[in-house]
Amino acid sequence: MSAKIITITREFGSGGRTIGKKVAEALGYDFYDWNLVSKIAAESGFAPEFVEENCEDASSALPWLFRAQNVGGDLSDQLFAAQRNVIWQLAEKGSCVIVGRCADYLLRTRTDVLNCFIYAEGEAKKQRIIHEYGETEVSIDKRLKDKDRKRKAHYQYYTGRKWGRAFYYDVCLDSGRLGIDACIDTVVSLAKSFTCTTPKEED
Amino acid sequence: MSAKIITITREFGSGGRTIGKKVAEALGYDFYDWNLVSKIAAESGFAPEFVEENCEDASSALPWLFRAQNVGGDLSDQLFAAQRNVIWQLAEKGSCVIVGRCADYLLRTRTDVLNCFIYAEGEAKKQRIIHEYGETEVSIDKRLKDKDRKRKAHYQYYTGRKWGRAFYYDVCLDSGRLGIDACIDTVVSLAKSFTCTTPKEED
Repeated sequence: MSAKIITITREFGSGGRTIGKKVAEALGYDFYDWNLVSKIAAESGFAPEFVEENCEDASSALPWLFRAQNVGGDLSDQLFAAQRNVIWQLAEKGSCVIVGRCADYLLRTRTDVLNCFIYAEGEAKKQRIIHEYGETEVSIDKRLKDKDRKRKAHYQYYTGRKWGRAFYYDVCLDSGRLGIDACIDTVVSLAKSFTCTTPKEED
Repeated sequence: MSAKIITITREFGSGGRTIGKKVAEALGYDFYDWNLVSKIAAESGFAPEFVEENCEDASSALPWLFRAQNVGGDLSDQLFAAQRNVIWQLAEKGSCVIVGRCADYLLRTRTDVLNCFIYAEGEAKKQRIIHEYGETEVSIDKRLKDKDRKRKAHYQYYTGRKWGRAFYYDVCLDSGRLGIDACIDTVVSLAKSFTCTTPKEED
């Protein structure tokens, strides 16, 4: 037996997406990341641009902003509901790796999910962001801080969970200190040996 | 290259001690757990019984109690200083696995340490405690709650860290869901492939 679904919750710049992609390739699983946007757009009826703008990294402050102005708050909730439906449909469809999008939380009642959290130290994340996405006019410190803040706020808002608390996950890995390859090998190995058949207990 | 020192911070009932012992055997490393008590007693001049009473699981509320009464607070600090000295001496001496005793925090400036956190869900911990230590007159729920509370309080008091925050560790594993053997294999494998040569960044 092995884990049918693998969720990867990750810090910006930790290489979590790369790790998820390589794990999916190694296991022959489907891989979902940015390609979820078009599926969520189709499910919700919203434009892909709107979905992307309201995704975990972009305008995560929107729900608060909408609510503070007492308009449109339920648009974010509608979007999140569509996200939940899409992720559940994909999990039903077949074995897959899902990166981000609160998939760990959304699939928490399933019995076949291995939940992973990937993070790294500041310097390792900065080096990786420059290497992967290149330099921009905005300083690397600001890019990292902004993205981390938004992703964390989005996750905590929708899940009610504290960012980085180990107990929500089956395995947490510091990709900067362990190396991307070691993280890939670890997740693949743990997914293969996974025999757990109960949902992850709430912390 | 590989990690010379492995620290295991663990929840009561998670099997962290067993995992550490097996990892030490697999790597041919020394193993330190309860046997640290006599070394800390020798270093500090305190009786082994006093050391044990003030260890992470026993009377961890003592520092507060001492301080509230304005007597003896520095005894706990003296004991912790002796603990730090012993752990540093052992780390200098040779490759080893150290379970508990805030070793992750005490060795945080070293460059050759793999830090692991082992935890498990409530039901898995209860089953393991009964299996390992047997039934007692005190209910399993109370034993688990008391020990967890004391260990967490001791760790947070001496390290200033939040219990269970992933970022302090290189790897965190849910031994209940992954299984003890998979945890042993993971730590051994990560220790072998470890090439990091910098101290773990402060969170």
